[in-house]
This record gives sequence, structure tokens and C-alpha cells, in this order.
Amino acid sequence: MKCRLCGATAAINMRQHRLALCAGHLIEWVPRHVARTIEKYAMFTPEERVLLAVSGGKDSLALWDILLRLGYQVDGLHINLGIEQGYSAASQARVEKFVATRPGTRLYTVDLKGQYGASVPELVRRRRGRKPCSVCGLVKRHIMNQKACEGGYAAIVTGHNLDDEVAVLLQNALHWNVGYLARQAPVLPPSSAGLARKVKPLVRLREREVAAYALLRGIDYIYDECPHAQGATTLFYKDILNQLESRSRGTKEMFYLGFLRARSEMGLPGPELERAELHPCSRCGQPTTAPGLCAFCRLWTGEHVRESGEFDGEF
Amino acid sequence: MKCRLCGATAAINMRQHRLALCAGHLIEWVPRHVARTIEKYAMFTPEERVLLAVSGGKDSLALWDILLRLGYQVDGLHINLGIEQGYSAASQARVEKFVATRPGTRLYTVDLKGQYGASVPELVRRRRGRKPCSVCGLVKRHIMNQKACEGGYAAIVTGHNLDDEVAVLLQNALHWNVGYLARQAPVLPPSSAGLARKVKPLVRLREREVAAYALLRGIDYIYDECPHAQGATTLFYKDILNQLESRSRGTKEMFYLGFLRARSEMGLPGPELERAELHPCSRCGQPTTAPGLCAFCRLWTGEHVRESGEFDGEF
Repeated sequence: MKCRLCGATAAINMRQHRLALCAGHLIEWVPRHVARTIEKYAMFTPEERVLLAVSGGKDSLALWDILLRLGYQVDGLHINLGIEQGYSAASQARVEKFVATRPGTRLYTVDLKGQYGASVPELVRRRRGRKPCSVCGLVKRHIMNQKACEGGYAAIVTGHNLDDEVAVLLQNALHWNVGYLARQAPVLPPSSAGLARKVKPLVRLREREVAAYALLRGIDYIYDECPHAQGATTLFYKDILNQLESRSRGTKEMFYLGFLRARSEMGLPGPELERAELHPCSRCGQPTTAPGLCAFCRLWTGEHVRESGEFDGEF
Repeated sequence: MKCRLCGATAAINMRQHRLALCAGHLIEWVPRHVARTIEKYAMFTPEERVLLAVSGGKDSLALWDILLRLGYQVDGLHINLGIEQGYSAASQARVEKFVATRPGTRLYTVDLKGQYGASVPELVRRRRGRKPCSVCGLVKRHIMNQKACEGGYAAIVTGHNLDDEVAVLLQNALHWNVGYLARQAPVLPPSSAGLARKVKPLVRLREREVAAYALLRGIDYIYDECPHAQGATTLFYKDILNQLESRSRGTKEMFYLGFLRARSEMGLPGPELERAELHPCSRCGQPTTAPGLCAFCRLWTGEHVRESGEFDGEF
């Protein structure tokens, strides 16, 4: 296959776009595609300072690279969750290596064990019955929101891509979980109660294209799955979607973008969390739907934590 | 495995119900399950006369057997569509064999070619670009509605089972086709404009259970797929749902029943077609959303027929 723009050997063939590109042109095409997504969904402007959750994986590092090249003001926040088998250490190392070659780039690192008193595995052991991914998500969202608000950032940015979103959408649709469906969007608006805006600029790009971009840009990212990964479940749904895609090209885009278009037609509530639903946690002040303490604080105080399935972490 | 009710060797293990039954108990359990469905969705009463669309396949013949055993007043309507390779002939033969052993059962047969002038394959050839399944569905729905109204029946009954419904639901959800989603229900209410109520009493039974019932009752049904079957597409979606089911038992029930529960929570329009959307066809008088002639009449008059995807047949 040949690059549509210059005829050189293509590095990637994106069938859903009927577009094959060589390495050089892909490296230019991806940021343009992301820029269009940011503008289409009014995610943030070049004048606004945004905070990117950077894990060390391909999506967040590729996104940081893209946003810096596009001229956005994007600082990074890395949370070392203390995950064993060298996973957290290796992740942090990749993030630090990334910034080392980009002078002037600002990175904040939070060491969960060092600053709060326990790692994710330790919290999981304390809270028997609470799954690791649930604790981890809760911790990351809490800290991200806190740092974003403290730092006066306009938005929290995450590296979720189209494949991530359609896997979640399929799960939510199979369960017809209206609450979760209502909260699935490229932009989650801020709440006056103290929740920052959250945006996903990679949401119209496939995992494969992000990986190609990262590799071609020479970004060294962590390849391994987290040892605790619900990897099996996510991989299963991604495989189902790949089968659906093979049968009908563009299924992933249709499923996700069609959802965004149809949601109001279906009468689905918008993603805004009403002020009435949120109040400040009595310990940390962060907004929560739970009475009294937020779910994050309850991890530390020993109060019974409700198992994932309810809203206490999903902001 | 042993029958839960009597300990004899089980003929079927229905994992989603955690229920294994022997042949004798399955033959009793299935009609009870269908009776509960009919009552739950207020489909029809024993005092009402209903018209069952009977194709000769396992679902419609099993359903007729069940409804007769339950004491409902159910007449059958078989439409011979003139499909080749002996398919229509064999289907009609199975239906006639079924009624031959059930004295007093009323069967009406419509010979499409004989009574209207052309078979489905001939109509397809006349209307190049119109898929066989589309013509076939249009014809069946039109004739069913006409006969139901002429005969003063309270409802049209069809043999759609849970596997059928979730395959369609998955396709509609992947496309987020709100119009089709709104019209997917166990009961489609009648319209004062002249559309009969339509009900699907098998909708909470799996294909496998219906097949087991038909076999154990000694019902001779047509095994072959229609030569024109979009069998590949339906089989593909059914396979996807079987994979999802293997991972998480009860997915099919959750997906369908969860949809019925969530639809009003979401604000999805109800399945009623407003009188304002329907008017009588100028040739046959049947209600249609299309201006002038209904899609069925346009098959015969030669007017351009819109390709499937719009509403003209889906009543």
C-alpha cells in the first residue's frame, strides 16, 4: 500500500478512513485529527492551562506529545500507585524519560504511599472485597481532581481512545446502565460544586493509530499490562468489537459517534452532575455523592466502602 | 444432570435459570413460562381471538402447540411466498401436517402467487435493488395485518424468541437507530388507524428451549433456512451474543429485559405509532406512513420502492 499523500510506502492503512499513510505523514495527520476533535467538542483552548493524567502508557504519552506539538499549555500529573513487580517504578521511569527530552515541560508526581500512607496493593489488602481496579480508579480520580482544582487548571485530560470508549459503551449498553450511559461523553462538564471539566482528546482515534504514532515518534512507553489488570475483561470486549468491525467497517465509529448523536434523541440525561447531588466531603472537601465522607477518604478511615457499581468514584 | 423436579435424567439444562428438566417436565414448564409472559405483558386473554403467523418453522409451530394447549383461541395464517427449491412447498406441508393432527384447529393459507399474481422471487426480480428479505417482510406484514383486521382478531401473534430479539437489539444498538429501538417491544399496541396489536409470546424463551420443546412434542418442522436467508448476518450476531453469554451467564436476558426496563428511564419514545403518522393507502386502504400508496402496493404498481431502512414495512 502507498501513502495517499505522497506515494511512499505506507506505514499504516486506516481502512475506516480509507486512508493509508507513510510514517512522516501519519506523524502529521494524527495531531491534526486530535486538534479537530478538541475544537469539535470545545474541549479546551490554547489559552487555558490543562492537566494531563500521564501513566507512562502509549495513550497518555502519545497525547502529551501531540498536545505539546500543537502548542497547548499542558502539564502532566503522574501518580505512582505503588503497584508491585516493578510496574509502577517502570511506568514512572517512562514518564520521567519523556519529560527529560522536553525541556520546559512541567510534570507533577504524586507518590501515593509516600504522601498518603499506603500503596494501592496495601489499600486492597486493607479493604477485602474491593477490587484493585476499583481502588485504583477511585484514587486516581480523587487526586487528579484535587490537583486540577488546586492548580487552577481548566480541565483534566485523559488518554482514552476510541477502542477504550466503545468497549465501555458496549458493556454499558448490554447492561442498559442508564446512569453510566449518561456519563459517557468526550467532555464531562465541570460542576460548580468543585469537579473539574474532564476531556478525552483521543476519543476518535483507534488504539492502533495511537500506538503507531507513539512508535514512529520514538516514545518509550510501558508495554506491559498492570499485574492487576481486568485485562481479560477489557480484552474480551475489545475482541468482540474487532469481530463486529471485521464484518462491517466503521462499526466502532458508528457505535460511539452514533451514541453521541442519538443520546438526546433517546431522552438520555446529559452528563452534568447536578449541584444537588454533590456535597463536600467532611474530611477532604472534595465533592461527593455519598453522605459524609467521600469514597477516597473512606479508604483511609476504615469506614465500610461500598463495592463498585455505584457512583462514589465515577466523576 | 438430573431433572430438578423429579430426579430423572435431564433432557435440557437451562443454565440461565439454573434449571435442568427431563422431557416430561420441560413439556410442562415451557407452556407455563409462555403463559406468564402473556400475562405479564397483557398480550391477550383467553376470551380474545388471535391470529398466529405460522411459517412451518420450529418457533411458530411450537408456539401454536403451546397456545392451543393453554386453551387460547388461536387461528393460524400461513402465507406461501412461492420461494423456490421446494422451500415454500415444504413449509406449507409442515403446517398442514400440524393441523391435520389437531382437529378443530383453523388454518388460513394465502398463496401469494395465486392470489396476488407474483411470488417473492418474482417480485424481487421485478424490483431490482430490493432485497428478498425486505420484500418478504413487507408482504407478510401487509397480509397479516389485512387478515387480522378483516377477521376481527384482537392481535397478531408471531414466534420471535429471545435469541431473535437480542440479535435485532444488538444491531439496533450498534447503529443507535432510535426509531427501530422505539419499536422493539414484546407488544406493539394497535393503532386506531387500522394496525392490529402485535405480540411475541416466546420472547423470554431461548431458541434452544423452543427447539427442545418442538422436538420433544414430536412436531415436524422445517429445518432448512430459507434459500434467500440473510442467515449469515443473523447467525453472526447470534454468535456474538453466544460469546457474550458464555462469558457472563444471563447476558441475553439482561440485555433484552434491561432494555425494556431502561427505555422509559431513558425517555425513549413508546412503540405507539401516532395516528398523525399514518393514513390509508389510496389503493388498498391499509395504514401507511408513506404518502399515496403503501410499500406493498408499490410492489405491484411499479412505483419506485424505497430501499429498506425506512418505516414503510415495519408495523
